[in-house]
Amino acid sequence: MRSLTKATHQDTREHNVRLVMRALAGLGPISRADIARRTDLTRTTVSDVVNQLAAAGLVQEIGRGPSSGGKAPILLQIPRDARQLIGVHVGEGQVRGAIVNLAGEISHREQLTLEGRDGDDALHRLEELLDRLLVVAAQPPLGVGIGTSGLVDTNAGTVRWAVHLDWRDLHLAARLRSRTGLPVYVANDSQAAALAEWTFGGHTPARGMIVIKVGNGIGAGIIIDDRLYQGDSSGAGEIGHVSVVANDVRCRCGRTGCLETIASLRAVDGRIQAVAHGPDERPEPSSNDPGALERSLDAYLTGDEQVRGIVIEAGRALGRMVGYLVGALDIHDIVLIGSMTAFGDPWLDAVRNEAQRSALPLLFDSTRIGLGRLGSDIVELGAAALLMTAELGLSQAA
Amino acid sequence: MRSLTKATHQDTREHNVRLVMRALAGLGPISRADIARRTDLTRTTVSDVVNQLAAAGLVQEIGRGPSSGGKAPILLQIPRDARQLIGVHVGEGQVRGAIVNLAGEISHREQLTLEGRDGDDALHRLEELLDRLLVVAAQPPLGVGIGTSGLVDTNAGTVRWAVHLDWRDLHLAARLRSRTGLPVYVANDSQAAALAEWTFGGHTPARGMIVIKVGNGIGAGIIIDDRLYQGDSSGAGEIGHVSVVANDVRCRCGRTGCLETIASLRAVDGRIQAVAHGPDERPEPSSNDPGALERSLDAYLTGDEQVRGIVIEAGRALGRMVGYLVGALDIHDIVLIGSMTAFGDPWLDAVRNEAQRSALPLLFDSTRIGLGRLGSDIVELGAAALLMTAELGLSQAA
Repeated sequence: MRSLTKATHQDTREHNVRLVMRALAGLGPISRADIARRTDLTRTTVSDVVNQLAAAGLVQEIGRGPSSGGKAPILLQIPRDARQLIGVHVGEGQVRGAIVNLAGEISHREQLTLEGRDGDDALHRLEELLDRLLVVAAQPPLGVGIGTSGLVDTNAGTVRWAVHLDWRDLHLAARLRSRTGLPVYVANDSQAAALAEWTFGGHTPARGMIVIKVGNGIGAGIIIDDRLYQGDSSGAGEIGHVSVVANDVRCRCGRTGCLETIASLRAVDGRIQAVAHGPDERPEPSSNDPGALERSLDAYLTGDEQVRGIVIEAGRALGRMVGYLVGALDIHDIVLIGSMTAFGDPWLDAVRNEAQRSALPLLFDSTRIGLGRLGSDIVELGAAALLMTAELGLSQAA
Repeated sequence: MRSLTKATHQDTREHNVRLVMRALAGLGPISRADIARRTDLTRTTVSDVVNQLAAAGLVQEIGRGPSSGGKAPILLQIPRDARQLIGVHVGEGQVRGAIVNLAGEISHREQLTLEGRDGDDALHRLEELLDRLLVVAAQPPLGVGIGTSGLVDTNAGTVRWAVHLDWRDLHLAARLRSRTGLPVYVANDSQAAALAEWTFGGHTPARGMIVIKVGNGIGAGIIIDDRLYQGDSSGAGEIGHVSVVANDVRCRCGRTGCLETIASLRAVDGRIQAVAHGPDERPEPSSNDPGALERSLDAYLTGDEQVRGIVIEAGRALGRMVGYLVGALDIHDIVLIGSMTAFGDPWLDAVRNEAQRSALPLLFDSTRIGLGRLGSDIVELGAAALLMTAELGLSQAA
């Protein structure tokens, strides 16, 4: 006997709200009648939902549209600044936060370095950042979304394990909720970034998308049927630590052969440094070395063949993993983000070619591998999208 | 702007029917009041749905249960023989069909060899099989479900490509629908098998499951959030043809390095034959050689170290793929089926150990890799489950 899914009237109501909100976000300005037509909801249901949204300040009338015979219909839209969202990225080396509106526009940013802090010290830094953002917010924001590296249980709001922060089973959402009095949601940074591309990236409509973040670490966020797919324990997309390479390079997770040991910026930087200084001379690359990208790019741009080979090999290893994902999931839209994308077309071509080589041609034919469209605020935006989705019943695709 | 999901009143009704049917299937015999309690539907809605199901002969009253104070409640259940389902497996070398009831019990089987037939000849054979089954069926069955190897677009009801049948863009569902006058559904055989384990396998309740079929070919069926996940073009789970091995063995898909070239029965049989006869003497293994399993098992049971190594290596290669899937999808229940499972514990241990080695420990800790619980009728049962799900609004998990 399996447990029953709860499908309550509440669910139906939320589903209707989400449908109307998406119509407003995607098609607005739009009339009630057109919303009903596009959503297949009755006009009565649409009117009820619109009244509910209007009472919450989430919809506004902006005048009458063209008449199609009868009385000209009143057009509705979501006031993009109706709510302020706080999106935070707990990164390697710093915590960054932004005040974001419902259209994904950032009105204010804050940033604090971690300077090697971890454990409670890092947590206090995060709390300080939040305090600063809350002071700046013009009105009480809708809540707080947080994207952090590590394994995160979004349902429970806990960070199960974030190695560079030394956080283990940290009840982050509950702790920040009691501090701020606001709803707080936490997700893995790659998953948050995927939500950002999906929600605010302006990509061609699709049912799903895989967004792969390739920086010092590697992780994917998977969108399936219009929603962030997180797996049985919120660990979906942890592709950086699957063994794909027959090398004996020790990964920061303690094992060998992980994708991160060859395809991450950290790995590429380490290998390029070894070429430049010899394997014994070079400093062990630290995971939050802010100079890694610039240094690696500089070496790459000198045109050195060995350095070029390291970057291409990194792209190929990633491409193999993309091929596995396409084969397993049959999702056609693959979006690459993160610092490694700075290596440009040669790297991207290596990813594409190897992915194509390792997936079934019939599946691969309709696959598009491209770069993300958002900037360095992507995790903050994704954290805001997570909050928006959960609190407003807005679909990730709105 | 994204297209809007259609969520009509029809959808809500179907959802309610599915909820009530699942309550009946999983918890029955059960009263209307208990159904309402367990589904969070109103008692009026439950009564309406039950009346609708009763009119269709899908629910029966079986007397009164114990009273909890007031009047003793009437208990309801699904009559397991209320509908006959036809499930068909288009396999390599034969087509097999079964008449199945709503509990997954088979009352009749038919089977026809293909003997090398493909194209229209194979199709005629399938039609002949269907005719035989329809003659035997006591009443017009609910419809026909078909599981076939190859890439299948379930939504369109077409076989996009089935290499051993030489079927390309075959409108199988439409063709059989017009022949039989019945609803027809088609899925890939691995996906159908996954549905069978999920629906009738009696596994511990879970949100998702990955079922991997390891026979002459290798393919997975993925259940996510209680439903068969098929991907953007119904190709999800095509893991047999992703490049994971650095060998130059030509796969039947035309490429090299595919998982099937090392982990399938066909590959294992070929390699064992090469050990026995020398690489030049051995006949090229054919994909539907019925003696492959027995021959390979016999060689394996002699205890020959080289043969044992071939089987273990096959298990390890599969285990690596399992590790990738666990890392990417974070699904905890992995079920292995197909002829390779006959190699028993040493092979299964090789799969488990390598999967564990290649996935992040924190993710892998709660992963269970086990064997399937259904017999050789699994694809027929899965095809019947596909039909049942689609036609009755029954969840795959009912």
